[in-house]
Formats: sequence, C-alpha cells, structure tokens
Amino acid sequence: MGFWGVEVKPEKPHPYHSDNVEGKLHVTQATLGLGSSTEKSILQCSIGDRNPIFLCSLLPNKNESCSLNLEFDEDDLVAFSVIGPRSIHLSGYFEADGGGHLR
Amino acid sequence: MGFWGVEVKPEKPHPYHSDNVEGKLHVTQATLGLGSSTEKSILQCSIGDRNPIFLCSLLPNKNESCSLNLEFDEDDLVAFSVIGPRSIHLSGYFEADGGGHLR
Amino acid sequence: MGFWGVEVKPEKPHPYHSDNVEGKLHVTQATLGLGSSTEKSILQCSIGDRNPIFLCSLLPNKNESCSLNLEFDEDDLVAFSVIGPRSIHLSGYFEADGGGHLR
Amino acid sequence: MGFWGVEVKPEKPHPYHSDNVEGKLHVTQATLGLGSSTEKSILQCSIGDRNPIFLCSLLPNKNESCSLNLEFDEDDLVAFSVIGPRSIHLSGYFEADGGGHLR
Amino acid sequence: MGFWGVEVKPEKPHPYHSDNVEGKLHVTQATLGLGSSTEKSILQCSIGDRNPIFLCSLLPNKNESCSLNLEFDEDDLVAFSVIGPRSIHLSGYFEADGGGHLR
Repeated sequence: MGFWGVEVKPEKPHPYHSDNVEGKLHVTQATLGLGSSTEKSILQCSIGDRNPIFLCSLLPNKNESCSLNLEFDEDDLVAFSVIGPRSIHLSGYFEADGGGHLR
Repeated sequence: MGFWGVEVKPEKPHPYHSDNVEGKLHVTQATLGLGSSTEKSILQCSIGDRNPIFLCSLLPNKNESCSLNLEFDEDDLVAFSVIGPRSIHLSGYFEADGGGHLR
Repeated sequence: MGFWGVEVKPEKPHPYHSDNVEGKLHVTQATLGLGSSTEKSILQCSIGDRNPIFLCSLLPNKNESCSLNLEFDEDDLVAFSVIGPRSIHLSGYFEADGGGHLR
Repeated sequence: MGFWGVEVKPEKPHPYHSDNVEGKLHVTQATLGLGSSTEKSILQCSIGDRNPIFLCSLLPNKNESCSLNLEFDEDDLVAFSVIGPRSIHLSGYFEADGGGHLR
Repeated sequence: MGFWGVEVKPEKPHPYHSDNVEGKLHVTQATLGLGSSTEKSILQCSIGDRNPIFLCSLLPNKNESCSLNLEFDEDDLVAFSVIGPRSIHLSGYFEADGGGHLR
C-alpha cells in the first residue's frame, strides 16, 4: 500500500485499471512536468464513452501544482489524459479494502 | 461508486437530484472549461428558493482550478450553475450509504 | 443535513448559533462576492469577547476563493464577519451527531 | 471543543502546550495579519532544540491565506513563530480524545 | 506521535525509512526554504528504481507553499528530493498503527 504516482504524458492516456492493485486509490496531487512551453496543460478523466471531465488546469510559472481529492475503486474504468504540451505528474496513496482504515 | 464528474455550462443549471445515484456525493474539485474569454466564471449552488451561494470563482490564466470539500445527500435538492462566460467542470466521488466507509 | 451556505456581508456579523440546526458544521469554502472594489476582504471569526481571528483574506482578481477546514459544534458561540468592501460567501456541510459518520 | 484560533505575532513565539486543553488540535488555516509591509511572513514550528520547520510562506497582495492540515497531541511540545514583519492568524479545531470522533 | 517535519535540501535526498518511527506518516505541507534564487524548486518522490514523481513545484514570490495529502507506510522505501536551488520544508503528522485513530 502507501504511495502511488504516475506521470501522464501528452497524447498518452493512462488507463487506471492497468495498475492491478487492490483497494481504493486516492489521487491527491497534480504537478506540471518539465518543459519550456508556457501554454497551460489540463488534466482530464474519461469514463467509458462519456465526455471527459477536466480535473485541473496547470499554468506554467503561475500555478504548477494543484491539490486533488479523488477516489477510484478497483473496478472504475477510467483513463487520465493531458490536453497541452507538458506532462502532469499525479500522486496519491492506496487504502486497503475491507476496513483497512479501521483495524 | 467511485469517480463522479459533470460539466456545468453557462445558463444551464445542473440539478444534482437528477443523477439518480445512491449514497453521498463528495464534490472536491472545480476547473474552468475551454474558451477564450478572460472574464471570470463563478460557480454557485442554489437550494430551493433561497439566494444562491458562491462556491468558487475561477480566473482565466490566473487560477483555473479550485479545491472544494462539499457533501451532498441523496435528498438534497440543489442545483449548480455558472455566472460568467465559460463552463466549469466539477469532479468528486460517491461514498456508499450505511457505513460503506467502514466495512 | 447536507449542504450549508451563507453570505456574510460587510458590517453585518453573522452569528453561527442562530442557525438552529443539530450536529456539527464543517465550513470548507470561502468565495468573494460580487462588487467592483479591488480592495481585499478578510473573513474573521469572533468568540465571545476575545480578539477575532482571521480565517482567510480574499484578493479581487487574484485569489477570490479559499479552501477552509473548520468544525463548529452546536454550542460554539461564534460570529463570522468581514473586514473590507465585499461580501464573502461561506459554504460547507452538516454532519449528524452521535456517530452519524459511522452508521 | 470546536473552533480554535491564535494570532502569532513577530518575535513572540506561541508555545502550543500553554493552551491547557484536552484532545487533539487540528490546525487547518493560516492567514496574514494586518500591516503595510509587503515583505513575506513565514510561519514556522519548533520542537525542542531541533531546527524549526517552515509551515507556510504568506505573500502580501499575492497569497495571504494558506490551508494547512496538521495535528498536534496534548503532549507535543511545539512552538509556532513568525519570520517576517506581519503576524499570522492560525485557526482550526479540537477533536476529543478517546474516540470522540466515533461515538 | 503528532507533528512531523523535515527540511529537504537540494542534492541531499531524504530517505523516508530512516526515520525509525512506527505508524503511518501523513505529509500535508511543503514550503520553500530561505534563499535568494528566483528559480523554481520541485519536490519529487522516488520509489526504488522507478522514475521519480513530482509532488509539487514551488515558485519564489508567487507560490511558496503547497498543501499535500500523502500517506506513507512504515515499509514504504521512498526518498524525497529537490530539483532546484532552494530547500523545501515538509511537514505533517504521524498516526498510530492498529486503529489509533479509533480508540
């Protein structure tokens, strides 16, 4: 359990269900990756064939980090992707199933 | 359960009770949608006929994302709406009723 | 239960204990109200005759929203007030007494 | 229980253990106090004779508020202090000992 | 238990497992250290030989503090490090193992 992190690169959607871990994922932080472009990069989340939802918008040299508070279950079929020129690093942590928070 | 997201468009209030899901909704993030206007967009929440309450104010090219921490019950009759030119994406997650957090 | 919100107007302190609701109040967000003044507005909280404590400082066109994480009990005798020209919208949610979080 | 707040003034460290309250303290918000200086003010926390740790850095007219999420136990011997010209207001809440969160 | 803090210095990775404490660590805040450089400093977290993940990016005189919400278990073999010229202060708190949150 414990720490979780991925780098989501432009034009490379990152499907969550490929992680093969048990338990609930808490995604709590997004940070802009390296690069020289000053265009903003937007993190979005897609579920099946529904329209993607924007999760945050990171502005180089202004706001390069953003707190999130999202929970994903093992069977959520979602994918993270980036609109914009720079990658976005996501971090968070796993919580065990079945009352792991309590015993 | 798991991830929840909607795009609230200007002049199109989004009633929460139309989602037909069971359990408690946590709304945790608001992000400005695409567009070229540099005017700010404000997210507000209305309950019945009371005055709407502003939940956040998003400023293009300055602060385009905002963390929230709001809980809505199944029987809350609220509606989200936007004052301003651009849509606002809301995201969060559902938590099961009846101790789902504990077992 | 569920959503809670008030608009605190300049020179009109809002006593919390007048709300007549049962349970614990979580105040989680403050957002600047409408207006043309570019002076900052500060939200403060007073308890009895002690000096008020500033909870956040909102800057027009720079930072118009602020996440909070405050809990108030039914018998807390506090009042919210604003220093500055524009009102501040507060939002949050109620949590039931007696283990409502757990059953 | 409920709301907690102090104003930490420059050159006047505020020892936490002087508060004489029972239970766990959650410090959740820091806000810059009044003043005309535009120099930044940094909040720091000292434990015994270890080097102080910076908790946040507040910038006048840019970022005057900061969310925190810190917990202190009754027997933590810490002191808050400010580096810079203006005071910093801290706020948060107390949580009862012994499962107060659960019963 | 209670408060935790470290200063992570440039070119001096800080391994978490050297802390020799029991229980879960919550890292909740990052703040830029002193210095005159106006270059940004990025906090990253490494696990084993995987690519490091950026946790936040701090910009002098713009955004010098950042809220985090990360959990680390006793057996997480991670290291924090800084890319950039200035140190980053991390703070948070420990939570006891085995239901310490509940009894």
